[in-house]
Amino acid sequence: MNGAQALVRTLLASDLDVCFTNPGTSEMHFVAALDSVPGMRCVLGLFEGVVTGAADGYARMTGKPAATLLHLGPGLGNGLANVHNARKGRSPMVNIVGEHATYHLQYETPLRSDIAQLAGACSDWVHTSTDADGVSRDAAQAVARAREGGRIATLILPADTAWNEAPSGPAEPIEPAPLNRVAADRVEAAARILRGPRRAALMLSGPVLIEPWVSLATAIAQRTGCRLLAQQSNARMSRGRGHPDVVRVPYVVAQARQALADIDELVLLGANPPASFFAYPDQPNMMVREDCALHALAGRDDDLVACLRDLAAALDLPADARPTIADRAPLAPANGALDADAIMQTVTALLPENAVLCDESVSSGRQLFKFTGHAVPHDYLQTTGGAIGCGAPLATGAAIGAPGRPVVSLQADGSMMYTLQALWTQAREQLNVTTVILANRAYRILQGELRSVGVENPGERARQMLSLDSPAIDWVSLARGMGVPGRAVDSAEALGQALIDARGEPGPFLIEARMP
Amino acid sequence: MNGAQALVRTLLASDLDVCFTNPGTSEMHFVAALDSVPGMRCVLGLFEGVVTGAADGYARMTGKPAATLLHLGPGLGNGLANVHNARKGRSPMVNIVGEHATYHLQYETPLRSDIAQLAGACSDWVHTSTDADGVSRDAAQAVARAREGGRIATLILPADTAWNEAPSGPAEPIEPAPLNRVAADRVEAAARILRGPRRAALMLSGPVLIEPWVSLATAIAQRTGCRLLAQQSNARMSRGRGHPDVVRVPYVVAQARQALADIDELVLLGANPPASFFAYPDQPNMMVREDCALHALAGRDDDLVACLRDLAAALDLPADARPTIADRAPLAPANGALDADAIMQTVTALLPENAVLCDESVSSGRQLFKFTGHAVPHDYLQTTGGAIGCGAPLATGAAIGAPGRPVVSLQADGSMMYTLQALWTQAREQLNVTTVILANRAYRILQGELRSVGVENPGERARQMLSLDSPAIDWVSLARGMGVPGRAVDSAEALGQALIDARGEPGPFLIEARMP
Repeated sequence: MNGAQALVRTLLASDLDVCFTNPGTSEMHFVAALDSVPGMRCVLGLFEGVVTGAADGYARMTGKPAATLLHLGPGLGNGLANVHNARKGRSPMVNIVGEHATYHLQYETPLRSDIAQLAGACSDWVHTSTDADGVSRDAAQAVARAREGGRIATLILPADTAWNEAPSGPAEPIEPAPLNRVAADRVEAAARILRGPRRAALMLSGPVLIEPWVSLATAIAQRTGCRLLAQQSNARMSRGRGHPDVVRVPYVVAQARQALADIDELVLLGANPPASFFAYPDQPNMMVREDCALHALAGRDDDLVACLRDLAAALDLPADARPTIADRAPLAPANGALDADAIMQTVTALLPENAVLCDESVSSGRQLFKFTGHAVPHDYLQTTGGAIGCGAPLATGAAIGAPGRPVVSLQADGSMMYTLQALWTQAREQLNVTTVILANRAYRILQGELRSVGVENPGERARQMLSLDSPAIDWVSLARGMGVPGRAVDSAEALGQALIDARGEPGPFLIEARMP
Repeated sequence: MNGAQALVRTLLASDLDVCFTNPGTSEMHFVAALDSVPGMRCVLGLFEGVVTGAADGYARMTGKPAATLLHLGPGLGNGLANVHNARKGRSPMVNIVGEHATYHLQYETPLRSDIAQLAGACSDWVHTSTDADGVSRDAAQAVARAREGGRIATLILPADTAWNEAPSGPAEPIEPAPLNRVAADRVEAAARILRGPRRAALMLSGPVLIEPWVSLATAIAQRTGCRLLAQQSNARMSRGRGHPDVVRVPYVVAQARQALADIDELVLLGANPPASFFAYPDQPNMMVREDCALHALAGRDDDLVACLRDLAAALDLPADARPTIADRAPLAPANGALDADAIMQTVTALLPENAVLCDESVSSGRQLFKFTGHAVPHDYLQTTGGAIGCGAPLATGAAIGAPGRPVVSLQADGSMMYTLQALWTQAREQLNVTTVILANRAYRILQGELRSVGVENPGERARQMLSLDSPAIDWVSLARGMGVPGRAVDSAEALGQALIDARGEPGPFLIEARMP
């Protein structure tokens, strides 16, 4: 057995059985090992940003890490933005990065680079294996580290550690270290604040936004009278009819300040202090009032679910307490012009049962939640690290992680251009992903940002830098080029019909929603 | 004047007047400054790999750095692979990476990351500005450092350094430090080796492969009887009829070993010792014989052109010595099936006068040079750092750096998928780039590499990881989607006609050459 075969067997023994790949020469023995060792599902991406973003989507739906197989420093670099997103959202991920053979690194060759430094810029754990017999132990470590609350583990494997003999064979799985348990006195202090006389809010992020925990959190809010909020960006939320409709902090500073203006005491459970996404000249960069007290109950290295259960217990609520959830009527599809609201209303009305809704709609999606509370029950995934180009890969990986569930992917056009190669993987794997391009032919969010930083009348060159209309992108042709059928629509009625038709067909479909 | 305006004025004063951009919120003031300060040409790329690869192509054609404008760590990460290529090829480049405002970095926000660590993994010089009034001085430094023999200078600019007042205004240009002059005794020792009795070779890389220096190097070879070789990967070579036809070291180990087998003494002028691109089990990783003596005459921090002139002088050759160059007859376009040779012969035969030929044809291009010595005089650019996804951005930047010259871009299909967004920029800027996709619907090079590492009979899953045929990529649709007209051809005659038609039309064109 060589090092590559020991690696694959170790990953399988550690319950890691999906590998998103874009291999090169230094990874050829791993590719060969995938044949000789049965059990690993391999999914090819034609760009590494697809590979890492898909691993993120897979992890969000399964709670397990996938492996990525990447080609030296540039391969990791290409995948870095979506590793960054996954890290911010605490998705577990095991990156396997091929490196030159140990004895070849002495030479200045084209692909030689400092992979460890690069990996350190985007990973929670980095290790370079030095010999074939150590690869399996290192791989078991990588999986364990990735599982500790959702971390990025990057294992750098010189090519000779793959092809040399590994006499010890595969390694036993290593148990992840348990998450920190939040101390009882902190939980009790938080409970006192939430039920106390001052206007309190509980802000969530992480797994407590998924059922059954988001319902428990809502029951806590109903019991104490506190407000319940979600951080602006979250990895996954249970939403739709029958689920709580938790409000997220808005992106726009003025809206966020207004939304949080009445809070005297803010208890953070998995959420970060609500700073603005960016700073702007002469604007506050904390979204609560200056005299609002912040209480960091549980951070992202803590066991958030245990903390939520303890909080419920401190409030005399059982862990299976269910909140009162208001009936929300289904929405009808919209009619008329295809503005953002019409798109969101129509997508909401026609969302398939048990769907996964991936959202990289950027500026067009700011009003999404006012609609999707009325949708069928679904999971909601969004970009967590602010790096665009996440959506299409995320939808790809979510479809693989949640087989049988339809995926609807809301995509801004500017963001979709970053990783459009994901469509090819959707076609190859015949994934049931319906992509809706919100085609406004601009970096619309940046047109707003230019005003926010104080530029009131941008000149022609600034406008050009933020415009995608010359030439206009023809999304149906791009989809066809990668084997995905598609249709352009310019009315809400046509969008509705396209969504109905996409539901009736297996495999991926793309709808270009041409906004006015 | 704010920091952003002082920056733009400083860059212009330092003779840097092209900026490839993909900006975000943290760069909005720079975008605004591009309007208020005239003189900077801004070129938008819809993915950062396009931006950095275009800056590389521009630098290769002009010898000057362009600026890139990138959005925080993920933006730099997306551009990293082509920064890596540029660094290996010693193209000067000034990366301007926006960062959160200094006082905003205290918060955990989605886009916060360690940009300096990431930049350190791909740059020769990294600096983070701390205040608006220092930005112009830092920018002048960055340009100077980039110009020192071709380096990557990365300047990280917190957003408040852009919007705050910069009372000192723009900075004066800073003179780059001179390159090292190789000592006379080393030059004389090399001259003795080259004209000595043992079989010697002079191996070049860098600017000495461009006229008039490649002709001087050839005159030296003719005077001394030594062989003249080029490193396997080079940033730019003057080639075609009337220019020397310098042989590059082959990629395949057995071919390289054979090509270099007769060399007893190898003098390196800008070239690295000829190690193989990758190591393979049980194969040597140095391409010369074990008893061949290596002489590192001039490294890449030395003044290679001065060294070559000194070497000529030591051999009593004037700096304008011209070699005897054999007449090479033009080739006729090929007929029949579209294998790699037929494509290369046809492209050679129909190469437009004074063209720039960008080559990312990977496995299909190994025999390119046996044809293009017969082409019209042209410049030849290739991938220098082994990171695929370089070709289309390189062609884009070369077209901007060499206005009026036609660009022909030979592209492997697998590599083209990495940065296909470059086509949109070619359409927007109406660049005269003709892309020929060598569509073999596979990572063909990796199918060979799998054998080279000892896997003789890959199984079905390994084959799937290296195949692009399910679904087949429709390149004409992809081009149309980004505003570039195109045509698929499946015979050499049809390829020839498409090349002729493309020459007759302004703007970009794409030809999908469907290989059998």
